[in-house]
Amino acid sequence: MRFSSRVDISAPNPIAAAEAACKRCGVTLGKLNDSNPTRHGLAPALVPEIYTADPRGPRAAREALAAFLTRDGQQEHAVDPDRLYILSSTSEAYSWLMKLLCDAGDAVLAPKPGYPLIESIARLECVDAIEYQLQFDGSWMIDIAELESLLSDPVNGKRIRALVLINPNNPTGSYVKPAERQRIIDLCRAHDIAIIADEVFYDYSLEPFDGNARLAGETGVLTFALDGFSKMLAAPHAKVGWIYVSGPDDDVVEAQRRLDVIADDYLPMSDIIARDIPALLDAASEQTAHVQQRVRGNLALLHQLLDADQYGLVSVLRAEGGWNVLLRVPSVIDENELVLTMINRHQLTGQPGYFFDMTSNGYLAISLLPEPDEFASNVQAILDTVNTLLS
Amino acid sequence: MRFSSRVDISAPNPIAAAEAACKRCGVTLGKLNDSNPTRHGLAPALVPEIYTADPRGPRAAREALAAFLTRDGQQEHAVDPDRLYILSSTSEAYSWLMKLLCDAGDAVLAPKPGYPLIESIARLECVDAIEYQLQFDGSWMIDIAELESLLSDPVNGKRIRALVLINPNNPTGSYVKPAERQRIIDLCRAHDIAIIADEVFYDYSLEPFDGNARLAGETGVLTFALDGFSKMLAAPHAKVGWIYVSGPDDDVVEAQRRLDVIADDYLPMSDIIARDIPALLDAASEQTAHVQQRVRGNLALLHQLLDADQYGLVSVLRAEGGWNVLLRVPSVIDENELVLTMINRHQLTGQPGYFFDMTSNGYLAISLLPEPDEFASNVQAILDTVNTLLS
Ligand SMILES: Cc1ncc(COP(=O)(O)O)c(C=O)c1O
Ligand SMILES: Cc1ncc(COP(=O)(O)O)c(C=O)c1O
Repeated sequence: MRFSSRVDISAPNPIAAAEAACKRCGVTLGKLNDSNPTRHGLAPALVPEIYTADPRGPRAAREALAAFLTRDGQQEHAVDPDRLYILSSTSEAYSWLMKLLCDAGDAVLAPKPGYPLIESIARLECVDAIEYQLQFDGSWMIDIAELESLLSDPVNGKRIRALVLINPNNPTGSYVKPAERQRIIDLCRAHDIAIIADEVFYDYSLEPFDGNARLAGETGVLTFALDGFSKMLAAPHAKVGWIYVSGPDDDVVEAQRRLDVIADDYLPMSDIIARDIPALLDAASEQTAHVQQRVRGNLALLHQLLDADQYGLVSVLRAEGGWNVLLRVPSVIDENELVLTMINRHQLTGQPGYFFDMTSNGYLAISLLPEPDEFASNVQAILDTVNTLLS
Repeated sequence: MRFSSRVDISAPNPIAAAEAACKRCGVTLGKLNDSNPTRHGLAPALVPEIYTADPRGPRAAREALAAFLTRDGQQEHAVDPDRLYILSSTSEAYSWLMKLLCDAGDAVLAPKPGYPLIESIARLECVDAIEYQLQFDGSWMIDIAELESLLSDPVNGKRIRALVLINPNNPTGSYVKPAERQRIIDLCRAHDIAIIADEVFYDYSLEPFDGNARLAGETGVLTFALDGFSKMLAAPHAKVGWIYVSGPDDDVVEAQRRLDVIADDYLPMSDIIARDIPALLDAASEQTAHVQQRVRGNLALLHQLLDADQYGLVSVLRAEGGWNVLLRVPSVIDENELVLTMINRHQLTGQPGYFFDMTSNGYLAISLLPEPDEFASNVQAILDTVNTLLS
């Protein structure tokens, strides 16, 4: 696996080497230059702990998280706290991983339709986000032939360094299927590129399915799985996310050596948050179940409302998981006109398909999160707008 | 002022434009695609607030911070909460500002000797950190002639986009002097580059001085002033830092428009931390005073111990502020040998001058933070090591 040249991993100087040797022998050294005030009785009363700067995040929090993920059965084997990096968000995780893998001008592959933030973050990291297509044909599939040709013969000779998989994807709601998965892993291994698997919506399946699995823990190719409290706990304001690193052992060791350098430059996780992490994890299953119930209930309600509409102009694309679904509206309606009309008539705005790079006209994303009354009135507003525009 | 092309500020699409128009007229729109669970009664009990994603950080926290900074008399005028960006650390602030100002391959100027993290962070951002020299001649001064020649005729034709000032600098402890300041601002304006002023140690003056001032609030040139709880509260584990933007109005508006896009991609500030910010600010003055007393006390103790040493081989460079000072040891001693001997004899490690790119041999940085007994024993260990190596 090749990594970027952004991370300085030059050989340690003689002093750092001696420090490492002492550490290996269990000798604790004093530090003349210790600028950590919490080790000298100077921490404020509100954050009294002694701060131990750990690039992967506070040890106790990582252990609590690993124990939770293991109990949750997220992976075949026990989750190793030493392969977790706790940070503020998946946005930050994307940034770190692009720094780790891509030099300026390199590229990552990202799904289309997909999460628009990836392109924006890539641009901030001097990285190109090249889109690969998901195709809808009753359900969504990754166009693996296209993926293969992008990797074999990249546009403008771009060096592609990672494949982003969103599992399930937003706003298509589609999981990476077992059959797709093996071909993708083989492809990534053959082309020596890493997988960045965004699994924030993984637990929110909208229908029963067989054989889907998290990419977290995948051993076939270097894999960085992202998740966090934003969706799992319905707590985007907690600002807790993580990366789990897996893959062939050599690649994992080399990746972590470099990721540690990046993490050590930022050390984003606050002890004020970390001390709440065990309690937040205790609430996680219940929170996920609560939100799950809401989104599943609203999806059923959506089907009812669409079925009951006398004009029958709006339908919903099959969604397998997540918090959003895509509505199909007659493609003769201009997507901008649709939303602008809705703003005028109903003081309601929304994101049409072109926001997510859908290949054709006539889509609208809606969230399944609102309380059922509000959700029903949102759907009625859409039906009213469509029916008005076509009458 | 020129900015990077990393930030996408393309014209809003018709829907975003209509949303902005509604906002200006005070019309609140519902959002079909609202994926913020906290607005739909789904937030967990531990973080119950309704999350309002604000790129500059939670409004209430910014107001509390602005009021504190105003009371503290940090600037001539009241501090404007709308020019503050609250984030996790100054490291993150450096990253955002490099993204804002520099395309890949552009450069920033950073002081030498100086804070080694700047070069590492710049490299992660595909930016070159070019060093400018501080000269010691009884006290430290910025070599403004060199600065001028670097700006007029940059090495390898690099486009220099910002000047980093550390006020006071680490580990030299030197403030930006009033006379230097005006020349530097004129220079930056003439060359159309921004100032990044790291003022985390500003309040820790080690001796009385006249006329020094924070760069925060400077109006002569676009200025991003950095500070945070790491030093002000002796709380590096709280993970609260901020950027204050000032300068000519047009530049400020344009900078904030772009910085808002960056901040909106990351939104790093947690509501779990934000709710503690007012209480932490209440403790700030006392914490600063407490640490101030420690570092000043240790500096006095250091002078006593050095004066009392019979060999008189070690002296301390005049430091004006901060938590660290530089010791001068005989330059015949190899810096690596000095520290390696100290590790062997005293289980104590340290950072010699070459860690900070000092131009000559014979320096050692020491922290003034330890409790006085530990501090005195650290100093004795240095004296013992130096005296042994030269005997
Ligand atoms: C696919 C996807 N990943 C990640 C996130 C956000 O995660 P975070 O808040 O941790 O940045 C979202 C939010 O909508 C998302 O849709
Ligand atoms: C000059 C300087 N700036 C900033 C920092 C650290 O600030 P933060 O913890 O907010 O990244 C340090 C820490 O030693 C420093 O020396």
